[in-house]
Amino acid sequence: MSKLALAIDVGGTKIYSAVINEKGEILSDVQKRPTPKTFQEIESAFRDIIKSFEDSVDVIAFSTCGAVNNSNDRILGSTGNIAKEYPNMDFKSLSKKPVFVENDANAAAWAEHVIGASKGMPYSIMLTLGTGVGGGIILDNKLYKGKNGAAGEMHFKMRTDKHRKCTCGSYDCFEAYASGTGLRLTAVEISEDPDITTYDVINNIKRPIMKKIFDKWQDDILNGIIGLANIFDPDCVVLSGSMAEFVDVEYLEQEANKEIVTTPFKVVRACAGNYSGMIGAALLALGVK
Amino acid sequence: MSKLALAIDVGGTKIYSAVINEKGEILSDVQKRPTPKTFQEIESAFRDIIKSFEDSVDVIAFSTCGAVNNSNDRILGSTGNIAKEYPNMDFKSLSKKPVFVENDANAAAWAEHVIGASKGMPYSIMLTLGTGVGGGIILDNKLYKGKNGAAGEMHFKMRTDKHRKCTCGSYDCFEAYASGTGLRLTAVEISEDPDITTYDVINNIKRPIMKKIFDKWQDDILNGIIGLANIFDPDCVVLSGSMAEFVDVEYLEQEANKEIVTTPFKVVRACAGNYSGMIGAALLALGVK
Repeated sequence: MSKLALAIDVGGTKIYSAVINEKGEILSDVQKRPTPKTFQEIESAFRDIIKSFEDSVDVIAFSTCGAVNNSNDRILGSTGNIAKEYPNMDFKSLSKKPVFVENDANAAAWAEHVIGASKGMPYSIMLTLGTGVGGGIILDNKLYKGKNGAAGEMHFKMRTDKHRKCTCGSYDCFEAYASGTGLRLTAVEISEDPDITTYDVINNIKRPIMKKIFDKWQDDILNGIIGLANIFDPDCVVLSGSMAEFVDVEYLEQEANKEIVTTPFKVVRACAGNYSGMIGAALLALGVK
Repeated sequence: MSKLALAIDVGGTKIYSAVINEKGEILSDVQKRPTPKTFQEIESAFRDIIKSFEDSVDVIAFSTCGAVNNSNDRILGSTGNIAKEYPNMDFKSLSKKPVFVENDANAAAWAEHVIGASKGMPYSIMLTLGTGVGGGIILDNKLYKGKNGAAGEMHFKMRTDKHRKCTCGSYDCFEAYASGTGLRLTAVEISEDPDITTYDVINNIKRPIMKKIFDKWQDDILNGIIGLANIFDPDCVVLSGSMAEFVDVEYLEQEANKEIVTTPFKVVRACAGNYSGMIGAALLALGVK
């Protein structure tokens, strides 16, 4: 009989939860609640969610903001939008069932690897293009975490003249250009309109200035992909997140393959859906490869 | 009794060879000859070197320019400075003993991992700063090669405005800034003297303009290291090659650790010596971890 996971996705603004099986199928309604402000309230929310389901599942699988250690039980450091004590969370103490924790971008990359766009490909790099940029790296069919679990941060520089501040405190990271926020900042720079939004660009893409802004943003994504392909020689780069629907993956694949010195690779759009973080965490927790 | 390798290092201008044991010790004189111009002459040189030693060694270990496949027997594609048919070399046919082939930067990274500066560290990235920049990646105590063996090419972009042509045909790669060639081009840009050399910079470092040039070059190396540390969460970055002796590894380590979002890592200088490519290839061929 298929084992089940209670998957809990923890973001800066929302917590989602659902029961997921070994095929990555969501078997329950997806519950949604706002992420509370304080550590105590977040912990109470976790206990509350777990209490309702732990008797009917085999494992508890967290997909969370923040880097997660190689033992999959602790957040490594500060995570931006969530209560600053969140790294103190003792996840294992939340349930009598086994508790497994993974970073949300890593979990989503695993979902794509097992049931999604990079299925059957041993080497893939996932870029989650949203408000920021998340990264998940699969090498030789295994999630790559680095020495302490923090790997896959897409903070490599696109220029070196301290032009644009990044959320990480440094300057000019890929995230600062390739994210939705990056598109807005590129739009402000090119249009000289401080109030321009990403929607203005996307919804008016036939206007030459909006096309120019969009192309600059997409070429920044292209340039990041070229570097990653030269470093990793991957089978594919998977693009996910709310901004991924706007990019031309065929263009990115074609242009990147013209410039790399490694071997041909694919650029594909993620297809495991909005709940890929929960699905990936469940599959990892259940040991599904 | 310790097994022995005949190690052969193949560069665009010179071929070195020596007998090396399982400790990475060089047991013979190191022979040196110019790299011949034609495929046939290169093959004859290989056969000539091998004929003298194959009866007294267990394996033949090539450390070569060019990307090498995951079966360690073929060059993947064109390699710049060497006869264009070189990728057709059938290495296994050169000897009755087992023949093992690895890329020179990868081999050198392995030598540092087993007997050198990154010994005892499971995750390390080696950057070879010479005329160009080579890269070797060790992850979880294994040489990382990617899907076809071409990984570790340090061609990620330092800017996106097509400012400086790279040897790879693209623009603004890390190699085009962090290499010795990169230092010269940075010197030309800053000094506006088209005849300035890297030696002019290094030998007159107390002059403010030379210091400014050097600092820009070193900060480009720093910015590349920051990106790699964020992507890989490594134990260390190892700097090797003729240009590595000029950089301030303590400065690079300190500044990089201030900017990364992953966990603290070291920056160290390679210490396995000028023949680290041969040593690493021998250790890999002999199965020494």
